Amino acid sequence: MPAIEDLVTELARLPGIGRKTAQRLTYHLLKAPPGEARRLARALDRVAAEVKACSRCGNLSDSDPCEYCANPRRDSSAVCVVEEASDIAAIEKSGRYRGLYHVLGGRLSPLDGVGPEDLSIPGLMSRLQDGTSELIIATNPSVEGEATATYLHRLASGVDGLRVTRLARGLPVGGDLEYADGVTIAEAFVGRREM
Amino acid sequence: MPAIEDLVTELARLPGIGRKTAQRLTYHLLKAPPGEARRLARALDRVAAEVKACSRCGNLSDSDPCEYCANPRRDSSAVCVVEEASDIAAIEKSGRYRGLYHVLGGRLSPLDGVGPEDLSIPGLMSRLQDGTSELIIATNPSVEGEATATYLHRLASGVDGLRVTRLARGLPVGGDLEYADGVTIAEAFVGRREM
Repeated sequence: MPAIEDLVTELARLPGIGRKTAQRLTYHLLKAPPGEARRLARALDRVAAEVKACSRCGNLSDSDPCEYCANPRRDSSAVCVVEEASDIAAIEKSGRYRGLYHVLGGRLSPLDGVGPEDLSIPGLMSRLQDGTSELIIATNPSVEGEATATYLHRLASGVDGLRVTRLARGLPVGGDLEYADGVTIAEAFVGRREM
Repeated sequence: MPAIEDLVTELARLPGIGRKTAQRLTYHLLKAPPGEARRLARALDRVAAEVKACSRCGNLSDSDPCEYCANPRRDSSAVCVVEEASDIAAIEKSGRYRGLYHVLGGRLSPLDGVGPEDLSIPGLMSRLQDGTSELIIATNPSVEGEATATYLHRLASGVDGLRVTRLARGLPVGGDLEYADGVTIAEAFVGRREM
């Protein structure tokens, strides 16, 4: 395959990138100094070679244990469980959490054939028995995320002295009440707080 | 820089790809088999190493002369002049043109400091004197594209026996008259044809 066609095809494999966008990106790289395409190629090779799942929490990182598990200043008594490693970056950006993480690697979804045995639940359970005082469930606020949260809550309530919490649901900051869906508004009522 | 951060930064350099999209693409590649990131890296390296501008027409290709200039079944009496190499793919997709191309490498734009000396006009002029019977001007239907077309028309009208044409302007096929702008409708009236 000619080199241009080859790159368009590879870029178009990426999610959310159609053939037209792939063509536009390819011609951008062709017009840019050749160093730009090579730098991107090196970054891809590095990720393929260096990034592994943390053997403790499942976070994707170029060190094992990952930067959170290895950081002695993180609060090791709290574990926040997320569906995917990419959720960690979003939580870190909030700047409000200083504990550790656990990546499930997905969510329960019987329709897609994803059961508890497909998620990293045994690793989570052994961590909970090992000096954890709070489990914060941060699965997505979707049907499957809620089902997963309920399942984890049931498992974790067997662990003595463990507090199990779930991230609050409500109106997104900067959002508009008029455009919020009914379920979100209902959750915001249920979770309303004294001012 | 950690490998993940490095890839996010490189992807976010691409036009139309912000940091959030770059993160989403990076995590997609991390979840995909590692071959996917490496295949994309190889395609980028190939483009950086193999693709050059055709010495005759300026098309970007991994052969010189490019596949159009080297193809004896193309009609060498017609030259279609475009702003960028990426325009050639769009014209080829139409399936209605069998001649050769010439890539200007931009369009006249005094505000951006782009003058005739920045475009591959001398190469075009020598090709026109060399057995070309029709010059089809396919610069973009923008202010700068029109100015470039006018400039080329003036230059080319000095060449004996050369027919100079411009791609028709009018309503885009599948478009809606109600949403067409006034200039396009005016052009469609000027260019109207017998049924």
